[in-house]
Amino acid sequence: MTTPALIDSLRALVGAAHVLTDGDLTAYEQDWRKRARGKALAVVRPGSTAEVASVVKACAAAGTAIVPQGGNTGLAVGSIPDASGSQVVMSLARMAAVREIDAANLTVTVEAGCVLQVLQETAAKAGFLFPLSLAAEGSCTIGGNLATNAGGTQVLRYGNARELCLGLEVVTAQGEVWDGTSGLRKDNTGYDLRDLMVGSEGTLGIITAATLKLFPQPAARLTAWAAVGSFDDAVQLLGQAQRHLGAGLTGFEVMGQFALSLVRRHMPQLRVPFADEVGDGHPYFVLLENSDSESEEHARARFESLLEAAFESGCVADAVVAENLSQAHELWHIRESIPLAQAEEGLNIKHDISLPVSRIPAFCAETDALLAREIAGVRLVNFGHLGDGNLHYNVQAPAEGDAKAFLRDQEKRVNELVYAQVQKFGGSFSAEHGIGSLKVQTLEQHKSPVALGMMRAIKSALDPQGLLNPGRVLAA
Amino acid sequence: MTTPALIDSLRALVGAAHVLTDGDLTAYEQDWRKRARGKALAVVRPGSTAEVASVVKACAAAGTAIVPQGGNTGLAVGSIPDASGSQVVMSLARMAAVREIDAANLTVTVEAGCVLQVLQETAAKAGFLFPLSLAAEGSCTIGGNLATNAGGTQVLRYGNARELCLGLEVVTAQGEVWDGTSGLRKDNTGYDLRDLMVGSEGTLGIITAATLKLFPQPAARLTAWAAVGSFDDAVQLLGQAQRHLGAGLTGFEVMGQFALSLVRRHMPQLRVPFADEVGDGHPYFVLLENSDSESEEHARARFESLLEAAFESGCVADAVVAENLSQAHELWHIRESIPLAQAEEGLNIKHDISLPVSRIPAFCAETDALLAREIAGVRLVNFGHLGDGNLHYNVQAPAEGDAKAFLRDQEKRVNELVYAQVQKFGGSFSAEHGIGSLKVQTLEQHKSPVALGMMRAIKSALDPQGLLNPGRVLAA
Repeated sequence: MTTPALIDSLRALVGAAHVLTDGDLTAYEQDWRKRARGKALAVVRPGSTAEVASVVKACAAAGTAIVPQGGNTGLAVGSIPDASGSQVVMSLARMAAVREIDAANLTVTVEAGCVLQVLQETAAKAGFLFPLSLAAEGSCTIGGNLATNAGGTQVLRYGNARELCLGLEVVTAQGEVWDGTSGLRKDNTGYDLRDLMVGSEGTLGIITAATLKLFPQPAARLTAWAAVGSFDDAVQLLGQAQRHLGAGLTGFEVMGQFALSLVRRHMPQLRVPFADEVGDGHPYFVLLENSDSESEEHARARFESLLEAAFESGCVADAVVAENLSQAHELWHIRESIPLAQAEEGLNIKHDISLPVSRIPAFCAETDALLAREIAGVRLVNFGHLGDGNLHYNVQAPAEGDAKAFLRDQEKRVNELVYAQVQKFGGSFSAEHGIGSLKVQTLEQHKSPVALGMMRAIKSALDPQGLLNPGRVLAA
Repeated sequence: MTTPALIDSLRALVGAAHVLTDGDLTAYEQDWRKRARGKALAVVRPGSTAEVASVVKACAAAGTAIVPQGGNTGLAVGSIPDASGSQVVMSLARMAAVREIDAANLTVTVEAGCVLQVLQETAAKAGFLFPLSLAAEGSCTIGGNLATNAGGTQVLRYGNARELCLGLEVVTAQGEVWDGTSGLRKDNTGYDLRDLMVGSEGTLGIITAATLKLFPQPAARLTAWAAVGSFDDAVQLLGQAQRHLGAGLTGFEVMGQFALSLVRRHMPQLRVPFADEVGDGHPYFVLLENSDSESEEHARARFESLLEAAFESGCVADAVVAENLSQAHELWHIRESIPLAQAEEGLNIKHDISLPVSRIPAFCAETDALLAREIAGVRLVNFGHLGDGNLHYNVQAPAEGDAKAFLRDQEKRVNELVYAQVQKFGGSFSAEHGIGSLKVQTLEQHKSPVALGMMRAIKSALDPQGLLNPGRVLAA
């Protein structure tokens, strides 16, 4: 099929208004962090699963590659077309319906284009919690969350997007529809195709809908802030909190002193508790969240008894429980302001790593020292979801000098040093952001060749033409 | 390679003492429920991952099929050889080490042959809970639990074997070793090979070790027993318990009156609470478990306030919280005695189905009536893990007449009726027992052809020679 013939046929399938070829397509062609820009043959916006299937069939017949796209907020450049102008972007944005809430089954079935925040609000209106929560929630979509196995701040208790998903509807590379939108919590009938699709970043199939878990709203959600004397103490505190609060512990975020100093410098209106009480201040801070099914009073008593015990055992230097919702929001706001504060400070090199929690203190001690030794003037912005072993172990350009030149000259070396350390300590170089096109080479370097071989065999088996998001996850 | 040459080479690889070809091999060749008996070419008992890999390579070179075997306690005839005498049984029983407990990371790494109960006890000794729990725990192995994605009584809170698994070590069909025994809670580096292997019943790779989640031991675990007026009320009570206890609700088992009447008939020493208070008694009973991270006192207060509220709202007719551990054990013992009571009563047809919780009352009402209408004298032994939507919806042969003849004449028809109803109500015909060889035809009938096509493509991609547990899950 010729290109004009394909475009005509796409117009016939989804309506001319939903096949974009002219005008400003930046929103579809550029990634969220503006690190890359591609060129689409066309942007197709199907309005139903049947339309998705028919578009895939038409593209497969023409040998044209498809780049599935949700909110296009990914951090690994996985949802924009390459520069060739030969790839079709398939935006799922029009498929945004919440199909069904099943209250007694604690499930919701939504289409892939549903924005995460819309789903959160829909669930809340029905009296439930949909716990997936992350910075891009106002724009990202459920389809993208599942395709990248999104993480965020509630993983400690509720798991990644993967753990929240019970069933999927998927259009295969052949344009067939697999209706697996089951709301079952147990189903041992064959291979786990659901989890194979989750996190495959649109390279094995196109997620068009999903059945997801809901939870009862907790009766109370309290936030605390603690200063700790070392990373070891933070890990100790985590263990105590897990024993003391059980599944009530829904958040455990760690922040290094330098990360918070950037917040204080660039957002002086935010008051960071215990930031300047003792000499140069505490090296690390922890934000804890306790969700309670009983009452706020009970949550507070449990939180206070945990913090007292932690104080007694010496792993907490100082701590406070937020008195009210606005104080709690302010504490979370400090944590969430770190990426922006980093940006205000200037250029930086980001890492999204995970490690066994037990090995994080040694990893940080050794890697901090290694970077300080190897890279002059390096400044570490270390923060993250300690409860999940997930650190955003970022490297800020030196305070003095040309930050652009620093990144140009040092980014590769910094990444090599950090990822080698991650591998040495049994960690992952991509905890929650995925591979996209940014980390395809890193995956080839660090993944076991046996695992890579299985991945390639699966890709060839399910997408033999290589038309689904080629060059993402695996090299094309 | 000739057969004698293969046997010689296996002896050279694992030691002659660990290649069994003579004597009584019943334990390896017959399934747990004695429904089938095969004939092995040899039983090989490797002692290390390297030996597993070398055995697979030797078998692959000889074109000989391998049947991986753990405790051989599966219920779907998936771990014994076929009758041909040409398949090698690979028993993982010698690989039973607990490799490492990582307390701060809340993980344990064990070899595949470790018996579940040994792992539970090892975890408990270290102060942790490994929550997977099921009837065969004294004999079944972790490798088998993962290969079949075992369920059991704690799934409501802790998930199936799948959810408890963070990483796997697997020997591929080519005899390569994939070391994926990571203890990471977040790792988005490529396709989810772990979950593809979990539940694949040894047809895609041989699990040799796993890294699993541990949990802090709860401070208290209490059990309650409630009589309810209908299945609808049981579902209502489940919702109330989920809201009231949150993640504290660790068990929610439902039992029909007839199931309990069999327990009372065949185990008269067991006292079933509220069984004969009102006329013919209550139609359904519920066993609830509440695990509390605070204290027994707190657990009891929460449990009592839940049951009071449920009584007020009318969904509970009567309820009692066990006063002490021995009462709690007795309540669980009643629940766990149902399968044995069924066996004492005579032959029966077992189903392991799951449904959306919301649809269970309608499913039961309609299917109970359908079976009563279609199959004369049918008696339903209905019980299961209602919290997971998982019912053991079993059909006991009529009280009068020849039970053997009933099964011979009616089993196929009963299964057809039940599975058609399951499909109509959006359920699964195998919730936790898997496919094995028993349900291969049922899978072909009820699974979506698109899903089956993907499964076959994956099987061919990872095991192109078709040597790993052939004829299980998918037809050979």
